[in-house]
Amino acid sequence: MAFCYGAPRMPELRRDPVVDRWVIIAPERADRPNALIRDFQLPDDEDGCPFCPGNEFLTPPEIAALREQGRWTWRIVPNRYPALRTEERMSRKGIGLYDRVAGVGAHEVIIETDSHKQPLHELPLPRISSVLRAVQDRILDLSRDVRLRSIVFFKNSGAIAGGSLSHAHSQLLALPIVPLELQRELEGARRHFEARERCIYCDVLDQEIGDRSRLVLETDLCVVLAPYAARTPFELLVLPREHRSAFERSSAEELSALASALRTALRKLDLALDRPAYNLYLHTLPLREPPSDSFHFHLEIKPVLTLQGGFEWSTGYSVNPTPPEEAAAFLRQTEA
Amino acid sequence: MAFCYGAPRMPELRRDPVVDRWVIIAPERADRPNALIRDFQLPDDEDGCPFCPGNEFLTPPEIAALREQGRWTWRIVPNRYPALRTEERMSRKGIGLYDRVAGVGAHEVIIETDSHKQPLHELPLPRISSVLRAVQDRILDLSRDVRLRSIVFFKNSGAIAGGSLSHAHSQLLALPIVPLELQRELEGARRHFEARERCIYCDVLDQEIGDRSRLVLETDLCVVLAPYAARTPFELLVLPREHRSAFERSSAEELSALASALRTALRKLDLALDRPAYNLYLHTLPLREPPSDSFHFHLEIKPVLTLQGGFEWSTGYSVNPTPPEEAAAFLRQTEA
Repeated sequence: MAFCYGAPRMPELRRDPVVDRWVIIAPERADRPNALIRDFQLPDDEDGCPFCPGNEFLTPPEIAALREQGRWTWRIVPNRYPALRTEERMSRKGIGLYDRVAGVGAHEVIIETDSHKQPLHELPLPRISSVLRAVQDRILDLSRDVRLRSIVFFKNSGAIAGGSLSHAHSQLLALPIVPLELQRELEGARRHFEARERCIYCDVLDQEIGDRSRLVLETDLCVVLAPYAARTPFELLVLPREHRSAFERSSAEELSALASALRTALRKLDLALDRPAYNLYLHTLPLREPPSDSFHFHLEIKPVLTLQGGFEWSTGYSVNPTPPEEAAAFLRQTEA
Repeated sequence: MAFCYGAPRMPELRRDPVVDRWVIIAPERADRPNALIRDFQLPDDEDGCPFCPGNEFLTPPEIAALREQGRWTWRIVPNRYPALRTEERMSRKGIGLYDRVAGVGAHEVIIETDSHKQPLHELPLPRISSVLRAVQDRILDLSRDVRLRSIVFFKNSGAIAGGSLSHAHSQLLALPIVPLELQRELEGARRHFEARERCIYCDVLDQEIGDRSRLVLETDLCVVLAPYAARTPFELLVLPREHRSAFERSSAEELSALASALRTALRKLDLALDRPAYNLYLHTLPLREPPSDSFHFHLEIKPVLTLQGGFEWSTGYSVNPTPPEEAAAFLRQTEA
């Protein structure tokens, strides 16, 4: 990127003056590979891959890792091109009509495997569980920093999903704000609870388990379904069957069940859609909140089969050509 | 697409049970070229292009056109793969927890030129003005159908921007609801007006014209700027300089000034970024509303240089690696 006009290089959060929407302006991220897209192929250079064993010197110093017999199987490192930084001083500033907050936060990368070509869903189940436990530990650790209010755990798999490296990895951002989409879910769930004294996600699970047309997978502890108002083709939700509000309070058994449901869901998508790019993310309670009767944590999986166009940007709504009933039926038939 | 399990093929609007978000489930759109992405090249087959002169029989019957000396210069036709249909009966239905509305609406395509390879911004100015006047006429015509509450006018230019044909065109959807993003802008603007008795967009214009760092272009009647909280690199806003709440009430002179500002902004982006794919859309008052003191109509332009990833889906926020001050400075220096 050649657009450097002496503007500040520190990340900052800026609020839109009209709507309640924050943007992270992160000039450092302009330096990373594929910052601005020109093509949609990921570099697949195993030798130079910063996530491969032997290249550990290419990442910032390790935060955590699982080592067995001298080899690591997963590693967590700070993002080399962070959207936010913990060492920033928290400062809020008005600039005329505008609001700015220094970009305080954390941005970490979870390298999910030491094997360059192995996708997350092809790892053995205990290793996927171990990755989820690592994420749980990081959330619990970051929650001690009271400046941080929420965690965004997400995965961009494939270039068209926003990935910049092909070696399997996910990311964790800790934010000094509660993101809009999570706020909307918390509020929607609270409204339902106030009217009915029930969790709306538990109600959805009840209805979907009865109806079955959008059900993809049921296990003792988890359910995978295509949501009624799926925004994009083959969008999936993974939920604990019992009411649970915070991912990071899951037991080892619950995490293992979640890993298993996630693995099967991703394997079904992989087979049904011929290795699609996808986004995966977690919606869990804001940090340090007591357990909630109204909110139910969940994972969302979005294979990237359609693109965000002018209609989606303009409205905040989507046009989805694939009814979720068709997606679920197809995935139920896909053996994985 | 081979996912046909007997689900209804009629479009319908579905509401998410937790958050206030509608989705258009439009199975007919699965039949169109590139419905689900596999690669990001647009077909560029001039012979088979349904928008080229001589191939008029490939589109549904014409709604409007401008003809000069026997040739048309723009045409408006119903979308062959509509997300919504005017002939649907308006029906609202609850399905357990869920809400459904039959997909009543209109979906039209504006074929902006008879020339297969000519992008909108390379048309002579009077022809761009004429396209905007055609959009204005369609909005005024559709506003007579009282089932319709708002118009979404947008353009997807390039495959990665969601375009499915390369011949220059834009689209118009008339919806039986007011989309969330427009609702949020209307409410944000109303809150500002209630507190200060001023239009927030007029205030933004004042501040930006004074500050200049995010200003791209000023003309007598229009301003183009990079918004303070730009979500994506080189995002631009085009606004009338004077307070105007509804695009469709613009005078011929105002539309011509808007066409000129839009043309220059698109030409600058084209030169600065080497023909980027982009989305363009209009935010104007809901249909049949009286002029508003608080809302100010505008066009938004978003070159597609970054992709929607897990962070954006999860939070509703964006990470933007290019500060708008850098984008604006670069575009000011680009002669177009």
